[in-house]
Amino acid sequence: MTRTVLESKSKTVVIGFDEPFCVIGERINPTGRKKLAAELEAGDFSTVEKDALEQVACGAMVLDVNAGVVYNSNPNPNETEPPLMRRMIELVQGLVDAPLCIDSSVPAALEAGLAAAQGRPLLNSVTGEEERMERVLPLVKKYNVPVVAISNDDTGISEDPDVRFEVARKIVQRAADFGIPAHDIVVDPLVMPVGAMASAGQQVFALVRRLRDELGVNTTCGASNISFGLPHRHGINAAFLPMAIGAGMTSAIMNPVRPVEMEAVRAANLLMNHDANGAEWIRFSRVLDAVAEGASFADASQAAAPAGGGRRRRRG
Amino acid sequence: MTRTVLESKSKTVVIGFDEPFCVIGERINPTGRKKLAAELEAGDFSTVEKDALEQVACGAMVLDVNAGVVYNSNPNPNETEPPLMRRMIELVQGLVDAPLCIDSSVPAALEAGLAAAQGRPLLNSVTGEEERMERVLPLVKKYNVPVVAISNDDTGISEDPDVRFEVARKIVQRAADFGIPAHDIVVDPLVMPVGAMASAGQQVFALVRRLRDELGVNTTCGASNISFGLPHRHGINAAFLPMAIGAGMTSAIMNPVRPVEMEAVRAANLLMNHDANGAEWIRFSRVLDAVAEGASFADASQAAAPAGGGRRRRRG
Repeated sequence: MTRTVLESKSKTVVIGFDEPFCVIGERINPTGRKKLAAELEAGDFSTVEKDALEQVACGAMVLDVNAGVVYNSNPNPNETEPPLMRRMIELVQGLVDAPLCIDSSVPAALEAGLAAAQGRPLLNSVTGEEERMERVLPLVKKYNVPVVAISNDDTGISEDPDVRFEVARKIVQRAADFGIPAHDIVVDPLVMPVGAMASAGQQVFALVRRLRDELGVNTTCGASNISFGLPHRHGINAAFLPMAIGAGMTSAIMNPVRPVEMEAVRAANLLMNHDANGAEWIRFSRVLDAVAEGASFADASQAAAPAGGGRRRRRG
Repeated sequence: MTRTVLESKSKTVVIGFDEPFCVIGERINPTGRKKLAAELEAGDFSTVEKDALEQVACGAMVLDVNAGVVYNSNPNPNETEPPLMRRMIELVQGLVDAPLCIDSSVPAALEAGLAAAQGRPLLNSVTGEEERMERVLPLVKKYNVPVVAISNDDTGISEDPDVRFEVARKIVQRAADFGIPAHDIVVDPLVMPVGAMASAGQQVFALVRRLRDELGVNTTCGASNISFGLPHRHGINAAFLPMAIGAGMTSAIMNPVRPVEMEAVRAANLLMNHDANGAEWIRFSRVLDAVAEGASFADASQAAAPAGGGRRRRRG
C-alpha cells in the first residue's frame, strides 16, 4: 500500500490510498499577490503568519511555502528566493505543526528550504525535463524527502493524457535510478481548465486511475486550475475534488480557507470510508453551523478543532 | 452505447453514458408527506401541480409519480393506488413536458399508470423477487417501456455488493427471456446510508462501475439515502452525486428543488464533458447569481430557462 510520509518536527502526515485526502494549503505564495510580494520585500511577514495559522485552523494538513517573489530592488530570483525561502520556512515551522511543502522553480531555493526545514518536507517539484531531473532528484535523494513530479518535459505540457502518463512514468523510473522509491513520488498529472479543454476533467480522472493502478503512486494537483475562467468557480471545484478523490487522487494543493471546497473534501472522505464513524464530518458540521450563524470559517474551525490537534499559538 | 429512451407526448430524454446526468424529480410522492396524503384523499391536487411545475423549472428532466398513499377511508392500496396513479399521471402530463416515471410497489397501479401515460415512461420498479419479476416484466414487454431494476430479491437486501450485483444480473437475464433488452433496464444498486454502513459510498461506486462495464446498463439510485441520519445532509449529497457520476451513474431519483445538489450535478456534467461549451453551467451560474440576490431557486431557474425548453404554463 502506497504511503508517502511527511513530517514536521512533531507531526506526521501520510498521503495514501487509505488515508483522508491530504489538503496542502496553497496560500503562502506571493505569485499573483502583489500586496504580499511588497510586504515580503519590505521584510513584513505578518501575512505569512496569518496565512499559516488560518490555513491550519481551516484544515490544511500540509502548508505549501513558495518564495517566488520578484523584488523591485532585485529581479534575479536565483539571488532573492533562497534566503527568502529559508526565512519563510523557519517562520512557518515555528508557528504551526503542519509538515511543509517547499515550492520553487529555483533549485537553489529548494535546497535552501531543505536545509532549513525540520522533519520530512515535501519537495515541490521535479518535472520530466532532463536538466530539472538531474538537478532536483539528487536533492531528493540526499535529503530523503518525497517529491512532487509534474507531468511535463522538455517538449512542454502535452494535451494528450497518454503522453503525460509516460512523462510521469519516466520520472518514476529516473527516480528509481537514484534510489528513490515510487512511494516518495507524488505525481501531478496537470489539471487543465475545463473551460479551455472540455475533456480536462475526464483526462484527470482517467490519469489518476492509471497512475495509481499502473505506477502505484500518490497524486496531487493544483485543484482550482480546473475552473479557471469560468463563473462560480467554487461550485466547479467542489464537484471536481470529490470526483478526483473517487478516481483515486490522494492530495491537492488548494485554498483551505474556502468552506465550500473543504466541505466537499470532508464529505468525500466520509464517502471513501476515510472518516471513522463520521467523527470528522460531525465535527465539521458544527463548523458549518457556526458559519451559518455568522462566524468566519477560520474562527469557527479554530473553535471546533480537536483538543491537542496542533499548536494554535496566536500572536497579539 | 447504452441509451435508455424516455418519452412524453412531445419530449424525449435519453439516459446514457454520453448524456448529461438524468435528474428524476422525486417530489410527487405522498410517502412521509402527511399533508400531501390528506390533500390527495380530499381530492386536492394543488401540491402535485406545484411540485410538477417547480421541479421541471429547477431542472428535473423526468418526474417520478408515486401514488403510495394510505387513505384513512380505505387502507387497501390495491384499491386506492391505481385510480390515484391514473389521475396523477393525467394531471402531470397535462401540465409539463417531462417524461414520467411511474413509481409503485402495487402492480395494478403500475398498470394503471402505463395505460394513462403518453409516450414512453420509465416504470419504477421491478426487483429480483420471483413473484415481482413474473408480474412486472410482462408489463414492461407489453408496453415496451424501460424499467428500474432494484437489486434486492426474495432473500431481502444484501449488505454484500457482490450479491446485489448478481441480483441485477439475474433481472437483466430474466428480462432478456421476455425479449426486453439490457438498455431498457436501469439498475438501482441500492444506496445504504453511509452513517450506518461506512463502506456504503465505496460499494455504490464500485457497483456502478461493474454494472456499466459488465452488464452495459444505465443506473439510478435514491441519492439522498446516502446521507440519512447525518447532519448537513446536503453537503454529503453534493459530494456523493459527482462521485457517483464519475463512477458512471447515469441518473438519480432526487429532489431537484435543492440548489446545492443541482449545482453539484451541473458541475459534474461539465467535468464529464457532457455540457457543450459549458453553456448549461454558464446559464446555471446566472441562476446562482439570482439566488444570491434573494430570488427563490425555482423562480430564478424559471427566469433563466432556455427559450422553448418546455411548457411553462402557470395557473392563476
